[in-house]
Amino acid sequence: MQPIAAPRIDLVSDTATRPSPEMRQAMVQAEVGDEQRGEDPSTNLLCARVASLLGKEAALFLPSGVMCNQVAILVHCRPGDKIFADESAHIVGSEAGAPAALAGAMVHTLAGQGGMFTAQQMSTHIRPGKRNAPRARLVVLEQTVNRGGGGVWPLAQVREISELARSHSIAVHMDGARLFNAVVASGVPARHYAEQCDSVWIDLSKGLGCPVGAVLAGSAEFIEQAWFWKHRLGGAMRQSGMLAAAGLYALDHHIDRLAEDHANARLFADRVTRLPGVRLDSDEVQTNLVFLDVRETGFTAQELSARLMRQGIRIGAEGACRLRIVTHMDVSKAQVEEAAEAFAAVLRE
Amino acid sequence: MQPIAAPRIDLVSDTATRPSPEMRQAMVQAEVGDEQRGEDPSTNLLCARVASLLGKEAALFLPSGVMCNQVAILVHCRPGDKIFADESAHIVGSEAGAPAALAGAMVHTLAGQGGMFTAQQMSTHIRPGKRNAPRARLVVLEQTVNRGGGGVWPLAQVREISELARSHSIAVHMDGARLFNAVVASGVPARHYAEQCDSVWIDLSKGLGCPVGAVLAGSAEFIEQAWFWKHRLGGAMRQSGMLAAAGLYALDHHIDRLAEDHANARLFADRVTRLPGVRLDSDEVQTNLVFLDVRETGFTAQELSARLMRQGIRIGAEGACRLRIVTHMDVSKAQVEEAAEAFAAVLRE
Amino acid sequence: MQPIAAPRIDLVSDTATRPSPEMRQAMVQAEVGDEQRGEDPSTNLLCARVASLLGKEAALFLPSGVMCNQVAILVHCRPGDKIFADESAHIVGSEAGAPAALAGAMVHTLAGQGGMFTAQQMSTHIRPGKRNAPRARLVVLEQTVNRGGGGVWPLAQVREISELARSHSIAVHMDGARLFNAVVASGVPARHYAEQCDSVWIDLSKGLGCPVGAVLAGSAEFIEQAWFWKHRLGGAMRQSGMLAAAGLYALDHHIDRLAEDHANARLFADRVTRLPGVRLDSDEVQTNLVFLDVRETGFTAQELSARLMRQGIRIGAEGACRLRIVTHMDVSKAQVEEAAEAFAAVLRE
Amino acid sequence: MQPIAAPRIDLVSDTATRPSPEMRQAMVQAEVGDEQRGEDPSTNLLCARVASLLGKEAALFLPSGVMCNQVAILVHCRPGDKIFADESAHIVGSEAGAPAALAGAMVHTLAGQGGMFTAQQMSTHIRPGKRNAPRARLVVLEQTVNRGGGGVWPLAQVREISELARSHSIAVHMDGARLFNAVVASGVPARHYAEQCDSVWIDLSKGLGCPVGAVLAGSAEFIEQAWFWKHRLGGAMRQSGMLAAAGLYALDHHIDRLAEDHANARLFADRVTRLPGVRLDSDEVQTNLVFLDVRETGFTAQELSARLMRQGIRIGAEGACRLRIVTHMDVSKAQVEEAAEAFAAVLRE
Repeated sequence: MQPIAAPRIDLVSDTATRPSPEMRQAMVQAEVGDEQRGEDPSTNLLCARVASLLGKEAALFLPSGVMCNQVAILVHCRPGDKIFADESAHIVGSEAGAPAALAGAMVHTLAGQGGMFTAQQMSTHIRPGKRNAPRARLVVLEQTVNRGGGGVWPLAQVREISELARSHSIAVHMDGARLFNAVVASGVPARHYAEQCDSVWIDLSKGLGCPVGAVLAGSAEFIEQAWFWKHRLGGAMRQSGMLAAAGLYALDHHIDRLAEDHANARLFADRVTRLPGVRLDSDEVQTNLVFLDVRETGFTAQELSARLMRQGIRIGAEGACRLRIVTHMDVSKAQVEEAAEAFAAVLRE
Repeated sequence: MQPIAAPRIDLVSDTATRPSPEMRQAMVQAEVGDEQRGEDPSTNLLCARVASLLGKEAALFLPSGVMCNQVAILVHCRPGDKIFADESAHIVGSEAGAPAALAGAMVHTLAGQGGMFTAQQMSTHIRPGKRNAPRARLVVLEQTVNRGGGGVWPLAQVREISELARSHSIAVHMDGARLFNAVVASGVPARHYAEQCDSVWIDLSKGLGCPVGAVLAGSAEFIEQAWFWKHRLGGAMRQSGMLAAAGLYALDHHIDRLAEDHANARLFADRVTRLPGVRLDSDEVQTNLVFLDVRETGFTAQELSARLMRQGIRIGAEGACRLRIVTHMDVSKAQVEEAAEAFAAVLRE
Repeated sequence: MQPIAAPRIDLVSDTATRPSPEMRQAMVQAEVGDEQRGEDPSTNLLCARVASLLGKEAALFLPSGVMCNQVAILVHCRPGDKIFADESAHIVGSEAGAPAALAGAMVHTLAGQGGMFTAQQMSTHIRPGKRNAPRARLVVLEQTVNRGGGGVWPLAQVREISELARSHSIAVHMDGARLFNAVVASGVPARHYAEQCDSVWIDLSKGLGCPVGAVLAGSAEFIEQAWFWKHRLGGAMRQSGMLAAAGLYALDHHIDRLAEDHANARLFADRVTRLPGVRLDSDEVQTNLVFLDVRETGFTAQELSARLMRQGIRIGAEGACRLRIVTHMDVSKAQVEEAAEAFAAVLRE
Repeated sequence: MQPIAAPRIDLVSDTATRPSPEMRQAMVQAEVGDEQRGEDPSTNLLCARVASLLGKEAALFLPSGVMCNQVAILVHCRPGDKIFADESAHIVGSEAGAPAALAGAMVHTLAGQGGMFTAQQMSTHIRPGKRNAPRARLVVLEQTVNRGGGGVWPLAQVREISELARSHSIAVHMDGARLFNAVVASGVPARHYAEQCDSVWIDLSKGLGCPVGAVLAGSAEFIEQAWFWKHRLGGAMRQSGMLAAAGLYALDHHIDRLAEDHANARLFADRVTRLPGVRLDSDEVQTNLVFLDVRETGFTAQELSARLMRQGIRIGAEGACRLRIVTHMDVSKAQVEEAAEAFAAVLRE
């Protein structure tokens, strides 16, 4: 299962971030108890802190962002209900079909711009009263948009969708896998996005650098229902305070520094898009994700990725002509420059 | 629940067909037994006959076409599997979200031409080996395409999709709600279409004029599995021979006459598309479905539909500017002409 | 699939009843329309009549009793909820696992007396507030109890369970497959049983002698929700008035006569329990079901059943030493006497 | 959510065990990578080690034992399938209805002795060929039996069930939440139990003292399928090596010492069953679980539990007259003696 050698410079995903020595120290000193009984002080503290950050009544610690999405979907939807999501959304292509498999929900995909659709696009597909149509019950927004290009949903666009949704008793869920990237990039506080949503979660194991975990927030009633699904899906743990302590550390130390990742992403993009045949596959680099279209380089995405890997640099190939580069705290500016250099060298070969 | 008065000329759907006196006589004389025990001779005969018509080993009588689709999906798929279908497909918008609700399957919609997509479109979304992606397991083709415009899937296009599917262990299911309309329109025998499919069904209650029922066909093993789902969904009946007898009558007397419905549909389309602002909303009228774009008439679809209804003529409005007109055995050529006349009169008002 | 010859005297189930010539005439003359649009007058009339009989706001026609049970479960429960039922219940052993497969509900079986449990038995298994336990949400009572011996749930026992249930927000559903047998046997009007239940259905295709169908009743809101599941499961039909007309005929002509079936069942039981080694496998014969324990006859249930079948008499064998005999309108008193005679002769061999 | 003060002596469950300083050191030094990509060396090592211990081809790390049970059920079963389990089983009462909610499986409960049923009991409920019955597909054995009294399934009894199961294509799954307690108590190696099973898991967070996690083992094909469900349920993590390192430490240091917990449990049972009115609620104390029947003490279980809690001693009350006491590595022999003493004092009051 393991690659022959770990990449020296790993730009394949911000999930590659490893816990720092300081974070590990926070973990080793964590005060713990039995989470399922509500007795893990570190987990309780983390949940309270995230709820407050997001302006929600309550929060729940879960082992992954996928489980946050799925628990939210399971609380909001009943079998046969319809979920609106962008066609590039994580819940559509990267959660193993869980929205249908677990909640029995139909996902209605919309073709947004850079992964972001409009209230207008959504409105034509709400058909209340039709007994043989799936009932629209939830809309999912991914912040930032991953496969859509790393863009940030503008608050106004979120608000418009939220208003439309609420007028039709449709709940709004934010997949906040990279919500803090959006916050740092836009300057809009997390709670302003969250205010437009019935449920929202943040991931600890991506840009924030924790090993495991994510936190889902919502109303007290929503979280009470979510607890049942946490048990049902096997997400109830024991001394999860070890993991929560990493989360608390990350909230203190790893949010503001996401700006560096964004700067590094722009730096990389600037360098490589000067190369012949390399184009940005999105309007701009807003956060830590860079998507490149390389169809005019004479190389496939796989070839480029493989050649860089031989030099210990890992980037992602998506289909025949698209590359994904993700910056994060375990890759320095110098390493990003080295990667851009190596990229140029490969193209010159 | 009932409209104030039944329409005199009902072009809203071919589901409006009522059993004729002759069909009723066939029903009243039906030999019957307990279907669940395999003892209903009329049902057994109908199943054998449909299996033979479609070149399949076995067949199963079910109370509706929706149940045929869902039983097939349930046999072919496991929770989390992915189904390819056109975005206009009946299973997507008109089966109350059942593919997800019952089978836990994700429907991946493709944007076809007139409801018909290509093997090429499908191929880019088969990603074997990705553990976090839904696994492609089924492709559903609707023959004829209803919301797509009443077109007939060309046999060659079906074959291309079937070959791609089989090379990836993806099953092929044909929603044959109007399969005989396709057969009559194209001259291609039903079994030629069916040969490309692992499962296929025909509807008795649309153009064929029966009150209730549909027949699903496939391999003996497929039908054996389908029996369990027939029980589970509540589709196992008792003296269903009363309904099957109508089906047998229809297979003898109501297939060839579908050509009349097609001629009537073309007649209606020819007449109304000469009117100012009325355009056909598909390339051509291939079968018994006519879709009109009326946005340039100065009327909304609802207004036109309501004005005709006042004269006892019912047609369907879909959204603000699209009309659907369906011809069938309970509407004569003269009535179709009368409807076209009335349509013209409304526009002249 | 068919037996070599149909039995002359079929006591295997009351589902064997075939529509009489008079019922067929009612069917052939039925006024019909498109049921899904609410335009089938016969179906509408049947639903109104059943709702009234059961004292409920609304009712829904479905192709089978299994679908009535499952639609009710799907409306009342969410995935992970708990249903109380007797261990002998039809939903437990004879609906192909549908409560779990469709609704995701856990069935908690209780060991009742003759298929009837008490409020007391149920109460110890209601554990509100435990987040890792299935939540009790529904209790299902089968009237009459089939596998439990054909007994009638006393109204007082139903009421006690209903009161307990309601005090815990648990809905009550009555599987009324043989509700009219209970009504005729007990003299308690159907609506008195139904009053204790949130949902209840009657079967047309058992003792009432119709070919296909059952009717589910409840509040207007319940039936509105049930419509979505009727579509989702494929139970929405078209000109179902043909079937509904049989139901209307049966309500007029086939209820009171169930008393004959009960008398015939008692007659048969009286005769055969005088035979050596034959014991009644229930306290008494209350309705049209007779369960016999034959372990002391020296024959297995299968042997007895096979020998009678050779004479054209069919009865049911359940396991090694239990027989089930069901009387119904297609078996006369004389035939029941003949069957008892033949039974005695077999034992004398 | 938190109790006013943490108990000094916590006998409520072995899930209360907190990671020791040595275990925390192992965690802080763990080598980690992205688990989902197969790149976490500690997780890979733990899985290989558990697979080997259990004699299986492969293993999978998951965040909880509940997820191990559910993933196994999801791989083995299809919707509508039947699972045999003891009525006291964890999957029945303590996993929030997940077998039905996630896999759509019906759980058929058997009334075993001390939570252990026989092949004989199971055999009468396998009814192959009945199309309207749930299909028996899995049997689940809980080792040790928790709610059944802490007993150890004898290897011969497991083998008999396994042989019956395999002859009917029924898979065997072992819920090994306390498998090592069984191993230490019986002297039977884990792989001997596992050999009789298609899937089996061990819990790290109970007697073994880890904070989070469990490991599921089976054939390579089974684990490959399990990976899809790990993703679907949200059990795929990132740098889970932090948690796996605790598991590796526990396998080295915390298995043999379970014998102390068993001795402490017997000690406690011996002391308190000498008190008037206190009886053991199982045949004997085989492992670390002690169940007491206190109905003849004049106290309810709740009263006894509450009075001990006032002295900082926590034990579990189950229903009105049953207590559960669980020994584990965070409770010394002296503390167990103190608890027994306090118990006696309460009764003397």
